[in-house]
Amino acid sequence: MELLKQRILTEGMVVEGNILRVDSFINHQVDVLFMKQLAQAFRDHFAECQVTKILTIEASGIPIATLTALEFGVPLVFAKKTESRNLDENVYQASVVSYTRQRPYQIKVAQKFLSSKDRILIIDDFLAMGSAVTGLCRIVEEAGATLCGVGIVIEKGFQPGGNKLREAGIDVYSLAVVDELKEGLIKLR
Amino acid sequence: MELLKQRILTEGMVVEGNILRVDSFINHQVDVLFMKQLAQAFRDHFAECQVTKILTIEASGIPIATLTALEFGVPLVFAKKTESRNLDENVYQASVVSYTRQRPYQIKVAQKFLSSKDRILIIDDFLAMGSAVTGLCRIVEEAGATLCGVGIVIEKGFQPGGNKLREAGIDVYSLAVVDELKEGLIKLR
Repeated sequence: MELLKQRILTEGMVVEGNILRVDSFINHQVDVLFMKQLAQAFRDHFAECQVTKILTIEASGIPIATLTALEFGVPLVFAKKTESRNLDENVYQASVVSYTRQRPYQIKVAQKFLSSKDRILIIDDFLAMGSAVTGLCRIVEEAGATLCGVGIVIEKGFQPGGNKLREAGIDVYSLAVVDELKEGLIKLR
Repeated sequence: MELLKQRILTEGMVVEGNILRVDSFINHQVDVLFMKQLAQAFRDHFAECQVTKILTIEASGIPIATLTALEFGVPLVFAKKTESRNLDENVYQASVVSYTRQRPYQIKVAQKFLSSKDRILIIDDFLAMGSAVTGLCRIVEEAGATLCGVGIVIEKGFQPGGNKLREAGIDVYSLAVVDELKEGLIKLR
């Protein structure tokens, strides 16, 4: 998506550890009017899939997932990362390793919000090693729901997550793919 | 707001520790079309305030804050709870105690996203002791920005957070106020 690519090149910063920082419009400050256009791109791509629910993981995936759910007119479910007294006892769960945090954690979804009749579209802001999305896929599978595909704002094409998912037959639709982050430079596909 | 009250009475559950669980439409599964109506109520109430940014805290405040930002046509900024390598070094921060988690944590906002020219509307899903919102207010003050007010989906009227903020002269607008949670029953104002 051209508009997104321009914005990544203009506002994105490469920080220590080859992390792409896009905190001015995606994952700290959020340009919601811009993100709405990205949500429309997801809706266009997955229009024929009869999506019944959008699934994401807290926290930075929630803005784009909320706007995508609004475009489809379906509920959003976000997997929880943290222990809370305010979560149902019956959960689906999976273990995830965060690239930016570098430690494993459990993600959980209350079983009552996913059923075998659901057709799920997973949405997230970033895809790198694919651990979070793979965890969400496992939860969809455990629930017996149908996975329609995965919509990603920015995929790091030099990390294996996207291709591993595609090789498993999943429709992974990334709005921008970063091919290289090097010495402060961002190379987009 | 009548529609919200009905929904809390129909779907809300009181669980151990006097916690109101509304995870079927607000903070785990999210009914985004319904939440859009709540966002419109915030826009109507704060319409004359010349809001420039919506401020919330991750994670469960993000859906309603995203939709409210969309209604106002302004950016959303969400304060971060967790340590991450992907956060700017120059941050405003405040200490917060969570009612459902019962331990203190730091919330952080990159300084570059709040300026003295900003007119901030704080949005959150719940207000009980008011620790999170008070932390956000402190960050707004530290940035020298103007606080337009606070929009809350559900206020626990039997806990002191809302009134403490009102006594400090802040316009706190809650769409529903719970006056009592007792033996599984929810009493709304």
